Amino acid sequence: MSLERIGLTQLKDKVISAQDAARLIQNNMIIGMSGFTRAGEAKAIPLALIDQAAQHPLKITLVTGASLGNDLDKKLTEQGVLARRIPFQVDSTLRKAINQGQVMFIDQHLSETVEQMRHQTLEKPDLAIIEAVAITDDGLIIPTTSVGNSASFIEFAEKILIEINTSVSTDFEGIHDIYIPSQRPSRAPIPLTDIQQRIGTRGIPFDADKVVGIVFNHTSDSPSNITEPDADTQAIADHLIHFFKDEVRAGRLPEDLGPLQAGIGSIANAVLSGFKTSGFHDLKMYSEVLQDSAFELIDAGVMTFASGCSMTLSKACGERVFNHLDNYKDKFVLRPQEISNHPEIIRRLGIISINTALEFDIYGNVNSTHVGGTKMMNGIGGSGDFARNAHLAIFVTKSIAKQGNISSVVPMVSHVDHTEHDTDIFVTEQGLADLRGLAPRERAAVIIQHCVHPDYQASIFDYFTRACEKGGHTPHLLQEAIDWHINFEKYGSMKI
Amino acid sequence: MSLERIGLTQLKDKVISAQDAARLIQNNMIIGMSGFTRAGEAKAIPLALIDQAAQHPLKITLVTGASLGNDLDKKLTEQGVLARRIPFQVDSTLRKAINQGQVMFIDQHLSETVEQMRHQTLEKPDLAIIEAVAITDDGLIIPTTSVGNSASFIEFAEKILIEINTSVSTDFEGIHDIYIPSQRPSRAPIPLTDIQQRIGTRGIPFDADKVVGIVFNHTSDSPSNITEPDADTQAIADHLIHFFKDEVRAGRLPEDLGPLQAGIGSIANAVLSGFKTSGFHDLKMYSEVLQDSAFELIDAGVMTFASGCSMTLSKACGERVFNHLDNYKDKFVLRPQEISNHPEIIRRLGIISINTALEFDIYGNVNSTHVGGTKMMNGIGGSGDFARNAHLAIFVTKSIAKQGNISSVVPMVSHVDHTEHDTDIFVTEQGLADLRGLAPRERAAVIIQHCVHPDYQASIFDYFTRACEKGGHTPHLLQEAIDWHINFEKYGSMKI
Repeated sequence: MSLERIGLTQLKDKVISAQDAARLIQNNMIIGMSGFTRAGEAKAIPLALIDQAAQHPLKITLVTGASLGNDLDKKLTEQGVLARRIPFQVDSTLRKAINQGQVMFIDQHLSETVEQMRHQTLEKPDLAIIEAVAITDDGLIIPTTSVGNSASFIEFAEKILIEINTSVSTDFEGIHDIYIPSQRPSRAPIPLTDIQQRIGTRGIPFDADKVVGIVFNHTSDSPSNITEPDADTQAIADHLIHFFKDEVRAGRLPEDLGPLQAGIGSIANAVLSGFKTSGFHDLKMYSEVLQDSAFELIDAGVMTFASGCSMTLSKACGERVFNHLDNYKDKFVLRPQEISNHPEIIRRLGIISINTALEFDIYGNVNSTHVGGTKMMNGIGGSGDFARNAHLAIFVTKSIAKQGNISSVVPMVSHVDHTEHDTDIFVTEQGLADLRGLAPRERAAVIIQHCVHPDYQASIFDYFTRACEKGGHTPHLLQEAIDWHINFEKYGSMKI
Repeated sequence: MSLERIGLTQLKDKVISAQDAARLIQNNMIIGMSGFTRAGEAKAIPLALIDQAAQHPLKITLVTGASLGNDLDKKLTEQGVLARRIPFQVDSTLRKAINQGQVMFIDQHLSETVEQMRHQTLEKPDLAIIEAVAITDDGLIIPTTSVGNSASFIEFAEKILIEINTSVSTDFEGIHDIYIPSQRPSRAPIPLTDIQQRIGTRGIPFDADKVVGIVFNHTSDSPSNITEPDADTQAIADHLIHFFKDEVRAGRLPEDLGPLQAGIGSIANAVLSGFKTSGFHDLKMYSEVLQDSAFELIDAGVMTFASGCSMTLSKACGERVFNHLDNYKDKFVLRPQEISNHPEIIRRLGIISINTALEFDIYGNVNSTHVGGTKMMNGIGGSGDFARNAHLAIFVTKSIAKQGNISSVVPMVSHVDHTEHDTDIFVTEQGLADLRGLAPRERAAVIIQHCVHPDYQASIFDYFTRACEKGGHTPHLLQEAIDWHINFEKYGSMKI
């Protein structure tokens, strides 16, 4: 225990065990918990809850920022604790339960969860469980490696449990900027006009009377599991950087490109890493998760500032950053996900958003979530928040998957997360398709030429040609379009 | 001619004939023209252009606010003048040409066209042709019945043609509020926090040196062709008003509901008209098009203020409003469509958006544009701008079409314009489905119970049940799902 991390004297006697804290969680409760893409989730209390549920089964609705580390979603699922899960996950065990209809998953734009709670479109949490570095003597909760939805959960919940993580340095104080939009109808504009700007407080204000327990933990975040760039992701990065250089030359982008957003995952991370040796400098990031690549670019002197709502780093990168926070403190900020992903800010700043597609179609629609239109992978995450309001909405993916049995470019996607109205640029290792200002038939020609894998190019071009003969603004042969997905489902390959 | 409508002395000698003006339009030009849903389009110059094109064929890209009146899209299409059309249309002749691939149509969110031009994602117009009431002596162009994209077209175009419509009263001065977001990266928040607020100028500022001609016309806007409410649209209105009352009782909506948006067309108009006798009062509208219903509600003392970007009225309503503008001047405002539809404002104000679906599926995805996934009807218009950022995104439609051969509720829509992530409430004459906070399987149960026509209820429930047995977060049987559309295409009915 490190009682000096509890600055507010009146809270020093609130320290309890994780077991006692977990006993405050009752059947059918809505729990608002910290945690965003393996960063900053509460750790001790959920584990104690899982233990107790083995004896005394219960079901909860778990609302977080995004996905959790330390296998919490897996363990909670295995113990049957999750009735409902909101708004994002990436765990294979939970995914299976979702797809079997055992856990009701509400897959949301990540800027919207707390907005919906604020205005009662979604129920408010009964209890907030928030990981913190410390509670300051002036009454602020200092979050750890993510802000996520924590600030609003603390405001909305009737009761608050705080987990102080002593493995995270108190140097984290000063990294966060907490701003919460006010209740409508008298909401003011969000005053953020520059990614470096601080518009809120350095910690989360809270009502100390709502705190029903403080628990200590000393467990690290799970490190990110990003795979190294390969030839394909390098090719994607190269196409994109080539495009950006052309845009700057043509005067359509400024030399610093404007604020960049990159989705989670290996491809987007590789694309960002590609900027290291690109010749670009003074880059800025206004994104959701700060991955290794953000700090690599800062280290390389190529990126001057990064704004996010969480930091999800590999072990090596985490050690470098967390042990030398002073080197980075003036170069990044963590905000609530409602602000990092807010349509008002995304549109105002003119973000270039780079997200990964599961598949896209020849007319520019993107599937980010559903395999075969049916099975959930992870969730839409922030990709919709960004793509919908971005200056340039870029989607990247490898052109094939499953040893070539899947073409990531299909005549018609099996599920739509981003519509043709919202996408601008597609990149695979084959090349880059620039769809700006094009009608659907023109988009198809460009996508087929630049993005489709050679193994599928002839058949998809043949589809498009015959569909055009039949006519339509967005020409389709419905049976053939769906056969691409049915063939994979039935025979394991789209090549049949 | 009414030269007194040209306040700026230096422009009085710019008056030319429509024929001379049309001769300034050259092959391959991009024309930015006023006009939004039959309101305020330039009238004399396009007609002169059509005449001239019969002798001297040419092709142009025509960018407007939205659809045009006076059959301009029809006549321009028949004369083969349109190479490209942006961002919306509703004309059956143009629609046919689009679906045959003869006119390239770029179907856009209506808040985005001029934003894309400003930042060179879309090319800027060579020439702006803008209908006006007058040019003031302090250098402002006063638009007529729509603002649409006119203010930005005037800013961006190299040359400007102005059509002064003497059939529109000069009393229109003072009705508009012109605010244009600044160029990034130093863009300020849009200061609008109340629908009645005026944040700009009463007319469009412009560079008088760019004016290459002023033409007079005396032609009225085409009146709207809204059909009267019928039993079905009345039932839809009743369901919705019942829902709103419940929401107010539950404390989830304020007594005045908050600002309303309603899409164009007969169903949304009927829904709004339904408020007249609902007992609600102090209603406010922050919408795109102001239709008859808005002014009916103002006349009935039920609505206190309406903000839009155009007014599209029936002949009778138009006579009432246009001849007594003084009675209405403090009760409505017309803004640029970029502001009426801006995500920043929609999210801030917490709009309740009501738009018409062509079809929707049991999981909450909406098709607003494509018949059978292929043929364009009109375009997405502003429905995406509103639904994506609204407090409540409501979609309405009759449960069947084509004498019952089409079910408007299907297992899987054939085209997606609004994703499951963005929709909250669905209403047909059968009932209302409230999807807030529900997972896909839960949504399906509610939609099937409340919205599907009895003729289709058993078969769609059977589909859903068997799909659930197969599994998935969003359970689908791909072949059967697409068969609903294929059956209609092949046999003229989904009942096969």
